[in-house]
Amino acid sequence: MAAVRDSREMAAENPAVELAKSHLVQPWPYAGSIGAEARTLVTSGDGVYLIDGDGKKLIDGPAGMWCINVGHRREELARVMYEQAMELSYNTPWYTMNAPSAELSRRIAEYAPGDLNHVFYTTGGSSAVETALRFMQFYNNVRGRPEKKQILSRGGAYHGSTYLSASLNGRPRDRDWMDAADDLVVKLSSPDPFRRPKGMSAEAFCDFLVDEFRDTVKAVGAQNIGCFVGEPIQASGGVIIAPAGYLKRIRDICRENDILYVSDEVVTGFGRLGHVFASEELFDIEPDMITFAKGVTSGYFPLGGVVISERLLKDLNRSNHPDAMFGHGLTYTSHPVGCAVALKNLDLLEGGILDHARAVAPYFQQRLKTLEDLPLVGEVRGAGLMACVECVADRESKDPLQLDKDVGKRIDQHCHELGLLVRPLINMCVMSPPLVITKDQIDHLVAILREGISRTMDDLRKEGVWQG
Amino acid sequence: MAAVRDSREMAAENPAVELAKSHLVQPWPYAGSIGAEARTLVTSGDGVYLIDGDGKKLIDGPAGMWCINVGHRREELARVMYEQAMELSYNTPWYTMNAPSAELSRRIAEYAPGDLNHVFYTTGGSSAVETALRFMQFYNNVRGRPEKKQILSRGGAYHGSTYLSASLNGRPRDRDWMDAADDLVVKLSSPDPFRRPKGMSAEAFCDFLVDEFRDTVKAVGAQNIGCFVGEPIQASGGVIIAPAGYLKRIRDICRENDILYVSDEVVTGFGRLGHVFASEELFDIEPDMITFAKGVTSGYFPLGGVVISERLLKDLNRSNHPDAMFGHGLTYTSHPVGCAVALKNLDLLEGGILDHARAVAPYFQQRLKTLEDLPLVGEVRGAGLMACVECVADRESKDPLQLDKDVGKRIDQHCHELGLLVRPLINMCVMSPPLVITKDQIDHLVAILREGISRTMDDLRKEGVWQG
Repeated sequence: MAAVRDSREMAAENPAVELAKSHLVQPWPYAGSIGAEARTLVTSGDGVYLIDGDGKKLIDGPAGMWCINVGHRREELARVMYEQAMELSYNTPWYTMNAPSAELSRRIAEYAPGDLNHVFYTTGGSSAVETALRFMQFYNNVRGRPEKKQILSRGGAYHGSTYLSASLNGRPRDRDWMDAADDLVVKLSSPDPFRRPKGMSAEAFCDFLVDEFRDTVKAVGAQNIGCFVGEPIQASGGVIIAPAGYLKRIRDICRENDILYVSDEVVTGFGRLGHVFASEELFDIEPDMITFAKGVTSGYFPLGGVVISERLLKDLNRSNHPDAMFGHGLTYTSHPVGCAVALKNLDLLEGGILDHARAVAPYFQQRLKTLEDLPLVGEVRGAGLMACVECVADRESKDPLQLDKDVGKRIDQHCHELGLLVRPLINMCVMSPPLVITKDQIDHLVAILREGISRTMDDLRKEGVWQG
Repeated sequence: MAAVRDSREMAAENPAVELAKSHLVQPWPYAGSIGAEARTLVTSGDGVYLIDGDGKKLIDGPAGMWCINVGHRREELARVMYEQAMELSYNTPWYTMNAPSAELSRRIAEYAPGDLNHVFYTTGGSSAVETALRFMQFYNNVRGRPEKKQILSRGGAYHGSTYLSASLNGRPRDRDWMDAADDLVVKLSSPDPFRRPKGMSAEAFCDFLVDEFRDTVKAVGAQNIGCFVGEPIQASGGVIIAPAGYLKRIRDICRENDILYVSDEVVTGFGRLGHVFASEELFDIEPDMITFAKGVTSGYFPLGGVVISERLLKDLNRSNHPDAMFGHGLTYTSHPVGCAVALKNLDLLEGGILDHARAVAPYFQQRLKTLEDLPLVGEVRGAGLMACVECVADRESKDPLQLDKDVGKRIDQHCHELGLLVRPLINMCVMSPPLVITKDQIDHLVAILREGISRTMDDLRKEGVWQG
């Protein structure tokens, strides 16, 4: 692949590349290159665009990691970081509190469904999920049912990168060489309609998933199950949208069995689907807890959190163990700068960006859908401003494995040449641009993606790997 | 206690107090008040001072949570947040990299001992410890010894607030109602000379601790032990300074038994003891990994990380499984704004603050030590700019339990009236002010603390709880 960027060429241009190879450990590295690897250098951003180390302008297809919702270089956010840092840069949440965290909690509570009125802050999605899980454990300990702790999760799920949160992950490659708390987690099928059994209708697939859930609750015993954790749309699993009605039916089973429902909105929250939270607005569910991160600060500052049902807190307030301590909290819990950034970010979302995201989403989905005429493309799916182009060897078998294992990476490399950063996931390309993307920019994004996939098809044909 | 601040009075002054009670969940809450609690409102900071919601000026005794090392309202740090956010506010570390993280890694590697040349970034101390532990698990999986995973920790330890990192904690109150991965952790005694068996010399106590460590390695089997994790000085445990030579002897046993030594410098790093890292400079040990957070950005931005030995990475590079993926990384790993803040913070430390901290530390310790003439004070201990005043019922028995359980909180309340924020820990008051504190400010801090303890003694006598 002659088009592949060679980091050795870049080294001459920017010392950061050699420094990274000598001193930086990148996330998700391979053993063979851990600690000795440079990645594409990015030097600046503006709106939906990034500039790489060669000065090339790229559309930020994944908006960072699903997070730059209001776009790069928003002066309002940079300014509020400066101003809050000059006012109060930090206070210990153990003994004190600050006004931005209290005000942000009020505004988040207004958007959260039902009685989800109380917010605990963390530094991102992993610590948000850890908080929800440790809260569930504490809640059941205080309520005198310490055996009610099993966690239900699903194939295709992604919930974090700490030991316990990562134990919930269902993406196959994440788990192979990593340890997990398998004794605490029960896994269910991924609700992926694209990979449902051949000949099964979407409705029958939904029934199958719901039956599996109910059977699992019976087999494990509701008295042993603390919570279910699920993304409304499985994001890193490949933008997997469950059959209509599925989430609501799962929610009902949880309620019937006194199993807490944790809706992981780290990706879907704060505008990705056009709403601050999607659980109720789009899926008609009122969870017991909602986890959030990413879009809450558009990635400018590490902040995450959990919105918790008032009912659960009242249960604890009225319990027989008022002195039981929820021994949980991070140094950066309720960080004043993070909460100030989130307040301004919410102003921007409310000031037109949520409206824009809802207005432009159908166009985004419709334009991407046109890529399904390419023979390498098995399906284009999505909702709001998140989408996935899934490549397959052929549409009949839907088999991705006959292809080069990293076809997504090959598409990414071509697209990079053409001015688009892709998020490659094995045989998939995920698109989740900043919410401020315009129709013209969508046209450009889709045109590049079409050309990148076409060039990849040419490469695969030339190499004899694929003859579609 | 008439002097206790009443949050109902504050409510009239600032709406944040009522908002917090209705919408904010504070860290480390009690079941009886979780989700319904306000804490002392803090509105601004400057240098070593905070201003509370009543306009009262307070010395920030704990520097936040041991973290505001360069002091509040450092314009250089606020400015760099603005400038980096305007240049590049975020990039995905999965597929790209930024220059500040590469440059920061070089500078951290220069300070880290031996071949600790490679840095992985997280969002704080808990995720730094999670990273070190998950790396150890991965390392041993790739090296074909998946049973070598047990973690050695100690009483008095504090390593974080995620499920796995918290499982290492040895502070008794943190654990009562929380679940932990007890099957993965082996606990050793706290190396606390103040509470060593009566009549035992410090040297004999050190021998006891080292023998216990060696015996534990034998009993568990070195082939089953992945790592030891230890703070050079146990911070949240009460500034526990182990007997001289202890850490080095533990380090030697780890090396002899191929057990990784993780030095948790989340508190001690970045100037608290006068050096960027204390492990080698002060304790003559070269760990396999060092975890850091807090002082690296002086709390202005959530950043943490692990410095990893090059030898371990080379072992992985040359292993039989080059395609094994270390499935670990956070959205905010290598955050460009966080790394830019850390670079500027390091400039400030190098530009005189480290020198000042080393120069003023003996005066700080000496002045605090004078409090030992108060009969309620059992011991004042410390190093660098961290110290602990431990209260006891009487010096002979050293029993803290005959006192009001929260004597530290009572002292804190008096000190607050007098202009000092304390970090109360049960029967202890921890002092770790911003490193820029002057001799005059130290005098003021110690004078307030003396008066606060004296008033507490009066209260306890009046209540008949204590007659010292």
